[in-house]
Amino acid sequence: MRATLRELGLSLGRMRPGPSNTMLDVPGFRVGHATLVSGHGPLRVGEGPVRTGVTVIMPPGQAPWTGAVHVINGFGKTAGLMQVEELGTVENPIWLTNTLSVGAVLDGYLASVRDAAAGDPGPWRNVVVAECNDGYLNDLWGLHVRARHVQEALSNLTAASLAQGSVGAGTGMAGFGHKGGIGSASRRLSGGHTLSALVLLNCGRPEELLFNGVYVARVDGPPTPDGSIIMVLAGDGGLDAWNLRRVARRATHGLARTGATSAPGSGDVVVAIDVGEERRPSDESLAEWFQAAAETVEEAIWNALLTAETTDGRDGRVLAALDVDKVVAAARRP
Amino acid sequence: MRATLRELGLSLGRMRPGPSNTMLDVPGFRVGHATLVSGHGPLRVGEGPVRTGVTVIMPPGQAPWTGAVHVINGFGKTAGLMQVEELGTVENPIWLTNTLSVGAVLDGYLASVRDAAAGDPGPWRNVVVAECNDGYLNDLWGLHVRARHVQEALSNLTAASLAQGSVGAGTGMAGFGHKGGIGSASRRLSGGHTLSALVLLNCGRPEELLFNGVYVARVDGPPTPDGSIIMVLAGDGGLDAWNLRRVARRATHGLARTGATSAPGSGDVVVAIDVGEERRPSDESLAEWFQAAAETVEEAIWNALLTAETTDGRDGRVLAALDVDKVVAAARRP
Amino acid sequence: MRATLRELGLSLGRMRPGPSNTMLDVPGFRVGHATLVSGHGPLRVGEGPVRTGVTVIMPPGQAPWTGAVHVINGFGKTAGLMQVEELGTVENPIWLTNTLSVGAVLDGYLASVRDAAAGDPGPWRNVVVAECNDGYLNDLWGLHVRARHVQEALSNLTAASLAQGSVGAGTGMAGFGHKGGIGSASRRLSGGHTLSALVLLNCGRPEELLFNGVYVARVDGPPTPDGSIIMVLAGDGGLDAWNLRRVARRATHGLARTGATSAPGSGDVVVAIDVGEERRPSDESLAEWFQAAAETVEEAIWNALLTAETTDGRDGRVLAALDVDKVVAAARRP
Amino acid sequence: MRATLRELGLSLGRMRPGPSNTMLDVPGFRVGHATLVSGHGPLRVGEGPVRTGVTVIMPPGQAPWTGAVHVINGFGKTAGLMQVEELGTVENPIWLTNTLSVGAVLDGYLASVRDAAAGDPGPWRNVVVAECNDGYLNDLWGLHVRARHVQEALSNLTAASLAQGSVGAGTGMAGFGHKGGIGSASRRLSGGHTLSALVLLNCGRPEELLFNGVYVARVDGPPTPDGSIIMVLAGDGGLDAWNLRRVARRATHGLARTGATSAPGSGDVVVAIDVGEERRPSDESLAEWFQAAAETVEEAIWNALLTAETTDGRDGRVLAALDVDKVVAAARRP
Repeated sequence: MRATLRELGLSLGRMRPGPSNTMLDVPGFRVGHATLVSGHGPLRVGEGPVRTGVTVIMPPGQAPWTGAVHVINGFGKTAGLMQVEELGTVENPIWLTNTLSVGAVLDGYLASVRDAAAGDPGPWRNVVVAECNDGYLNDLWGLHVRARHVQEALSNLTAASLAQGSVGAGTGMAGFGHKGGIGSASRRLSGGHTLSALVLLNCGRPEELLFNGVYVARVDGPPTPDGSIIMVLAGDGGLDAWNLRRVARRATHGLARTGATSAPGSGDVVVAIDVGEERRPSDESLAEWFQAAAETVEEAIWNALLTAETTDGRDGRVLAALDVDKVVAAARRP
Repeated sequence: MRATLRELGLSLGRMRPGPSNTMLDVPGFRVGHATLVSGHGPLRVGEGPVRTGVTVIMPPGQAPWTGAVHVINGFGKTAGLMQVEELGTVENPIWLTNTLSVGAVLDGYLASVRDAAAGDPGPWRNVVVAECNDGYLNDLWGLHVRARHVQEALSNLTAASLAQGSVGAGTGMAGFGHKGGIGSASRRLSGGHTLSALVLLNCGRPEELLFNGVYVARVDGPPTPDGSIIMVLAGDGGLDAWNLRRVARRATHGLARTGATSAPGSGDVVVAIDVGEERRPSDESLAEWFQAAAETVEEAIWNALLTAETTDGRDGRVLAALDVDKVVAAARRP
Repeated sequence: MRATLRELGLSLGRMRPGPSNTMLDVPGFRVGHATLVSGHGPLRVGEGPVRTGVTVIMPPGQAPWTGAVHVINGFGKTAGLMQVEELGTVENPIWLTNTLSVGAVLDGYLASVRDAAAGDPGPWRNVVVAECNDGYLNDLWGLHVRARHVQEALSNLTAASLAQGSVGAGTGMAGFGHKGGIGSASRRLSGGHTLSALVLLNCGRPEELLFNGVYVARVDGPPTPDGSIIMVLAGDGGLDAWNLRRVARRATHGLARTGATSAPGSGDVVVAIDVGEERRPSDESLAEWFQAAAETVEEAIWNALLTAETTDGRDGRVLAALDVDKVVAAARRP
Repeated sequence: MRATLRELGLSLGRMRPGPSNTMLDVPGFRVGHATLVSGHGPLRVGEGPVRTGVTVIMPPGQAPWTGAVHVINGFGKTAGLMQVEELGTVENPIWLTNTLSVGAVLDGYLASVRDAAAGDPGPWRNVVVAECNDGYLNDLWGLHVRARHVQEALSNLTAASLAQGSVGAGTGMAGFGHKGGIGSASRRLSGGHTLSALVLLNCGRPEELLFNGVYVARVDGPPTPDGSIIMVLAGDGGLDAWNLRRVARRATHGLARTGATSAPGSGDVVVAIDVGEERRPSDESLAEWFQAAAETVEEAIWNALLTAETTDGRDGRVLAALDVDKVVAAARRP
């Protein structure tokens, strides 16, 4: 696997990451991927090439958890947001996949819940399934994600390590004209709490990418579509839904610092979960959560870009991995 | 079929309905149902009894159409709302079904779009699938709605007549402790325009139901869950998305006049479509649209209640048709 | 004073009012009015006729209190809403006045806070000042409300009795083509809690007014402007801000049942306060609060209409008191 | 006057500024300040020291103009936002002042409108008055801003040049622990259009300030309160209110790049005005407006910081001007 930002000796922000610098630093969280890769050459709808997948984020313990949503630009097809906004709860694991597989994942997951239940599966039926469009590389209309891939992602749930880059839902995604995908980061807060971000990066234009204030990317070749980005925040601070929503809004600040401007055709969506026991935060404590939201999202985006491998796809298209040297140079300029 | 409000000689509001007093009065709109009814007796998950279905509302001409959303109480699992809110457009027919079949309908519809396309299905990929919970009568966790029922609803699209009551997505729904389901109504506006409502009624408690200010229902027996209501407004006035959203909010006024209070566990959702050529309305014109929204929603709810037939379901449960005499008495009191 | 709805032997809704059936039923709340009436005949800007005033609602104990806002139609100039929406707190008494006196009331109140403080007035600086436009009768541009009227309203604060109708901010207001003004109502809830509404009624068209489903008004003469309505809810249930906001949204249901449709030029605004000790409500408990919100708002509107006296104003204009016999007849029809 | 960012030879972003790189680049816009400075030494409420003021932004031509609002963090007392959100229009010049002078400015401005009118001042009565809290230096509770300062600001309206830094409403404001105040910037877009920002900077913590990804500030001394920032965007692209609101949201991206995280007690508010003739933008065109919103806000914040002069105030407190050399060093590091 390619190196993350910190493995390159670089860093961002003012706060300290957790041990793994991923969402797995929040105790009990598990992540599972199902990665679908097959075929090469011209697009044949229904056949391939296939460059897509599913990622599932499983909070610890029993549903529901405290939840919040923030939509920066709502060009997207994410399901399940309305009830999170009304109730302030997340009732199921969070699913990530491609734009046209939201229905298949939702249907497949409900079937798996039904099959797993000894009797009544209970009342928690709202499921968040978020998506980005991987149709630049993937046979999107082939609808290749099926119920078995939902099962596969569940089977792969682990707290041991978090694969980043071109895996799971990130398999076919782009970012700033390069290969995008899954990225994660975490921050430690006062009181031993942790906030983490896991992003599905598929947004950004090449000319936008900023590292330490320097435009680093500037690739040649045809532009990718506006794309989208899903930002999942997970923490254990015991924030109530009201304040968790305020934290979710600060994901925007992290996204903005990468140079992204949430383009008109980009679905920039934040989903936040808190699994701690509820307590009312002070303003000073909240300020720390805000900073952590901005830092984890910014660093998770960088980790997605830095760990994703060069990937080919339909019609011979290629998304190149970001050139690490450019980032290192930006960090060390002039 | 049981009689609608006006077929009973009653009426509501101050405006004049269109010829059919349904959504079909808006030129070009078509509605299709797929109704699933099978089995009796004890619930066996996956076997039945089945009392559910699918309803599809197809606007005329080419996507996208002007669209708007209003969420009165967001306890629900409707998919596709976020992008309507961001862009002010509806890109596909509106789908109604049960709570756990949103994914199956979404997946099945996308497959049908793919199969129907000569080549690329094009960019309009956001699909609104709205739902109510018919689990009081239906084997909800049986996930009986499949892709073929999506096809069946599409095959049944017609502008000739609109079946109301216990059909399509309304097959297993409740309303104010009675049998609910599909209802519709329309109003004529200045300039020859039409506004119509089609509701999927599954909300309301027995003691709440108001007709002409009289509490008419008061049934015995176990209460049904809080339920939900989906209110689809369709018109041809050429409202822009900004003002169409304001119109959508007035569905609340019609809903409220039936006595409903949008209970904590009720998903009360409005989706509005306008297929006319865009023009900026005057405030006086807008006031007429507001009134029409309130009147059509109120009357559509009554039509759902009045046309729905007594229906049995799982575990011998029965939802009785509303006693028409009670309504007539309420209209003629003291 | 003219009789309220219940003093006429009529009633609305299914719940029981508190002892006074006003906001004063919530322990500790006080209300104060300053009423400005002077002059007759043609409008001379700066001279009169003056038909306006100020009303202040003072919660018990120390700020801040739990607060929530819901905007049904935002054609209005109410100040102070943004921070209530962000923090879920009300920090000062709620002020009602005419459209162009929001600034004068805000400025006058802050001066009074400063003058009353022994030293630093402390941090609670957000003030909600809501308004309706009484320019149909009043010399609105005369800006007659000044700091001394703010002081007068504060001096008149009392929990002993609540004057309704053409008093305070309600002095010059209209409602459904008749004289509007201040109205109030309350409901008792489980556990000994109380919810109350106080409205500043200045909205509604004559042809809209519904009592028990009968259109009762239908007055002749020139129509009044669209107007506005401010609905203040006050309770002691200990609702958190999240759920209090959901309660505030049900004011719409009460408003709708009077026949109002929240016209394009109407500022229909709900502000809710809870002064109880915070506890998490059950859904069943919330449903009761929802019902109470709808009932108190509907009845408060009727009390404003029924208690307001016929009032003349600028240019010989007259707003007639609603004919009580019409309402009684509507209640006893056919 | 101290130098702006570009006068220092530095720059930000990828787009080209207009001739003056201020809001005055949008044809017809004028800005006027009234600056109140008097007294030194200990705070005596009502006497001073006074470090405050008023700034007014006057669009060209006749009201109403297209308007939009975005609230990033709603800890603030800005008046007039609700109606902009409902109607998508701005009806009067935009006013900036201190937190406790919103009422005085609103009242004073309405009086000036009344006095200026030959007869009826007409229907456009909604006034946006935004504020930040300058109480760190200023005798805030002295309520020193009165109607005559409103007149003074109007008298000072000019399109000739825009004073930045410690002037008008910016006189007493802070920013990132340094002296803040008024800043502005502009960008040229395709088709000859212009977007500009004018900010009232009073937010940010010293340790947050980022220039080109380097933390530049790190001052000693007691921290200032969380503060606030008002961001006014003005353009002539003919955006409709729907899309102008989307542009307004991208002010967040510019704010974020300065390192600010919109602290819990910060009122971060965006108001946008478009005075061009309405036309529907393409997505590609919108993307350019988004980028311009981010760039102008970021650069306007820097211009506020760089042009503001060291200012003393109550109780001997001093806010130092930002050390320009630190910024230049950040731009030239390693």
